[in-house]
Amino acid sequence: MSALSDHAGSGPLSLDALVGLLEKIFLRHGTSAEVARTLAENCARAERDGAHSHGVFRMPGYVSTLNSGWVNGQAVPVVEDVASGFVRVDAGNGFAQPALAAARPLLLEKARSAGIAVLAIRNSHHFAALWPDVEPFAYEGLVALSVVNSMTCVVPHGADRPLFGTNPIAFAAPRAGGEPIVFDLATSAIAHGDVQIAARKGELLPPGMGVDSLGQPTCDPKAILDGGALLPFGGHKGSALSMMVELLAAALTGGNFSFEFDWNKHPGAKTPWTGQLLIVIDPSKAAGQNFAERSQELVRQMQEVGLRRLPGDRRHRERSHSDQHGIALDEQTLQQLRELAGL
Amino acid sequence: MSALSDHAGSGPLSLDALVGLLEKIFLRHGTSAEVARTLAENCARAERDGAHSHGVFRMPGYVSTLNSGWVNGQAVPVVEDVASGFVRVDAGNGFAQPALAAARPLLLEKARSAGIAVLAIRNSHHFAALWPDVEPFAYEGLVALSVVNSMTCVVPHGADRPLFGTNPIAFAAPRAGGEPIVFDLATSAIAHGDVQIAARKGELLPPGMGVDSLGQPTCDPKAILDGGALLPFGGHKGSALSMMVELLAAALTGGNFSFEFDWNKHPGAKTPWTGQLLIVIDPSKAAGQNFAERSQELVRQMQEVGLRRLPGDRRHRERSHSDQHGIALDEQTLQQLRELAGL
Repeated sequence: MSALSDHAGSGPLSLDALVGLLEKIFLRHGTSAEVARTLAENCARAERDGAHSHGVFRMPGYVSTLNSGWVNGQAVPVVEDVASGFVRVDAGNGFAQPALAAARPLLLEKARSAGIAVLAIRNSHHFAALWPDVEPFAYEGLVALSVVNSMTCVVPHGADRPLFGTNPIAFAAPRAGGEPIVFDLATSAIAHGDVQIAARKGELLPPGMGVDSLGQPTCDPKAILDGGALLPFGGHKGSALSMMVELLAAALTGGNFSFEFDWNKHPGAKTPWTGQLLIVIDPSKAAGQNFAERSQELVRQMQEVGLRRLPGDRRHRERSHSDQHGIALDEQTLQQLRELAGL
Repeated sequence: MSALSDHAGSGPLSLDALVGLLEKIFLRHGTSAEVARTLAENCARAERDGAHSHGVFRMPGYVSTLNSGWVNGQAVPVVEDVASGFVRVDAGNGFAQPALAAARPLLLEKARSAGIAVLAIRNSHHFAALWPDVEPFAYEGLVALSVVNSMTCVVPHGADRPLFGTNPIAFAAPRAGGEPIVFDLATSAIAHGDVQIAARKGELLPPGMGVDSLGQPTCDPKAILDGGALLPFGGHKGSALSMMVELLAAALTGGNFSFEFDWNKHPGAKTPWTGQLLIVIDPSKAAGQNFAERSQELVRQMQEVGLRRLPGDRRHRERSHSDQHGIALDEQTLQQLRELAGL
C-alpha cells in the first residue's frame, strides 16, 4: 500500500493520497478545513467507485465556482431541531455535503427513535453524486431516500421549454450477507455530467435524451449544452417524478427551485443553489422478518429470473478493484489536479 | 340533483347513488358494513373521476375475489403505535383501504407532531387506484407519498422473466388557490387495468409495453395477459423504482413480495396479497415561504414554459363534470352491477 500512498510519481493513487490531493485543491481555493475534507472524500470516493461523471472530472467546476464567489466555502451549517422527526439545516450558501455531515448525528438519533425522520437542507449547493449521501445509512441498517433539485435544463413532458433540473432520486437499503442495495438515478433521460463527458469525447448520444436550442430532438451533446435542454426519462412519468423532486427538495426545505437562482453575476459559477431532502427509516420498527434478510431474498429472486447485474454492482466491483490496485488517473488529469493544488 | 340520486331508471347516477349500489354489492358478497362503505366510496369516486380502469370495471374482480375466500371481507384492521413517527397495521388479510382508514387519525396526529410519519400496512389486498389514498392528505395541507406492490407481472430490466408487480407510486401535495398536485404512476410501462381494458376493447397497445409468453415484444394486450408480462417504464430507472417499491411496500411492512403469494387454491382470486407504505410530511415544519404558495409558484412556472395539462387535471375536470351531470354508465355495465347487487 505504501507505493500507492506515497504518490511522488505517476501510477495509481491510494484513496488517501487522492483525498489528500483534492483536499489541498479545496483549501487553496478558500474552503474551510472541514469543507475541504468532506468534499475531497466525497469526490475521491466517487472516482474510486468508477463514478467518473462525479469524480475528479468535477474538480475544475468546484474551483471555478469557488473562485467566482458564488458559493461560500467557509459556510458553517446551522442545524435546527424542529420536531421529533424533522431536522432542518441552513447550509449558509455552502455545499450540501457538510450540511448533511453536520446534521447526520441528530438525523440518525431521530430516525432510530421516531422510526422515520426527514432532513431538509436549504441554501445549499450540490455538485456531487447523490448515492454517497444515502449509502452510509444502509451500512447502519437504515433505509434512506434522497432527492436534490439542480438547475433548469430539463423540459417538462408536454412543455416547450426547460424548467426542471436533472433532479436525481437516490435510495439505499441494507442487505444481509451482501453490499447494500443502492441506486441513484437522474430523472432526466441522461445525467448532465454524462452529456458533458460525451461532448468532451466527441461522442453522440442515443436518441430521446435531449433537444437543441430550437427545441428539436438531437443526439449531439454539444447542441444540448449549447442552449439546448434534456428530456425527462420515461415521458410523463419521469416528468412527474422530476416535479416531485422540485417540491420535496425546494418547496419542502425552503430552498430555491431549479429555475430560481441567477448566477449571471458570478462568471464561472457551476453549482446549483437549491435544496436537498433526505428521508431515513428504521426498518427494525417494521413487522415480520428482519428487513435485511428480506431484501436479500428479493435480490436472490431477481437473480433467479435472470438478472445478472444489480444497481450498484459495477460500483462495488470498481471499488474493490481500486482498493486493491489503486485509483488510476491519466497523466493529463493528474497534472491538472496538481496544478489546481499549486504543486 | 334528485333526478340523479333517485336511480330507478337509466341515465347518469349521482355519486351517492353509485356508492349505494356498490355498497349493496359488497354487502351481498360478505363484507362488513365498514368495508362495504370504504370500498364503495373508493370505487365510485374513481369512476366519478374518470379513472375507469379502477372504477366499476373492478367490481366483478372484487366479487370473484370475495367469493373465492381469498380475502377476508370482514377483517378488522389492528393498528399498532410503534414509535412517534411509525404506525403499523395488520390488515388481517382484508383490504388495504379499511386498514388505512383505521390508522389515518393516528397517522395524521403523528405527522403533525413529528413532522413526518410512516404507515406500514401488511397482510392487505389493494385492488384500487393509489391516488385516492394520498389525495386527502393534501387537502389537509400535508404532503403524502405512497407505494404498493402487487403481483408478479413485470420483467425487471435486464432479466428474462417477470418478478415485480406494477408497483405504483402516488404523490400528493397541497397547492394554494388550486386543486392539490396529485399523481399516481405504475412503475410498469402500462397499468394492468389498462391492458385489461385494451384487451376487452380489442385494441392494440403502443410498442414497449410488454412481452408475450415467450418473452418476445408484443403490442397485443391478450398476449400479455395470456402468459406474457409487462415491462417497467423508462428501462433500468423504472425497474430500480419498482424494486424500491417491493422493498418499501413489502420488506418494510412485513407484507408479501409480489411473487410470494399463491392463490391457486382460490380460483377467482384477483387481489394481490401484499403490503403498502405511506409517508406523510407536514410542510408547516419547513423553513421559508408557505409550502402551498411555493407549489403554486411551481405550477405557474410549469404553465409558463408551455405545459397545458398538469397531472390530475383530467381527473378534476371529470370530477367536476360528474358532479354537475352525474356519473354516466352504459346500460350493460349498469345491468351487470344491478345483478351483482341482486336487484
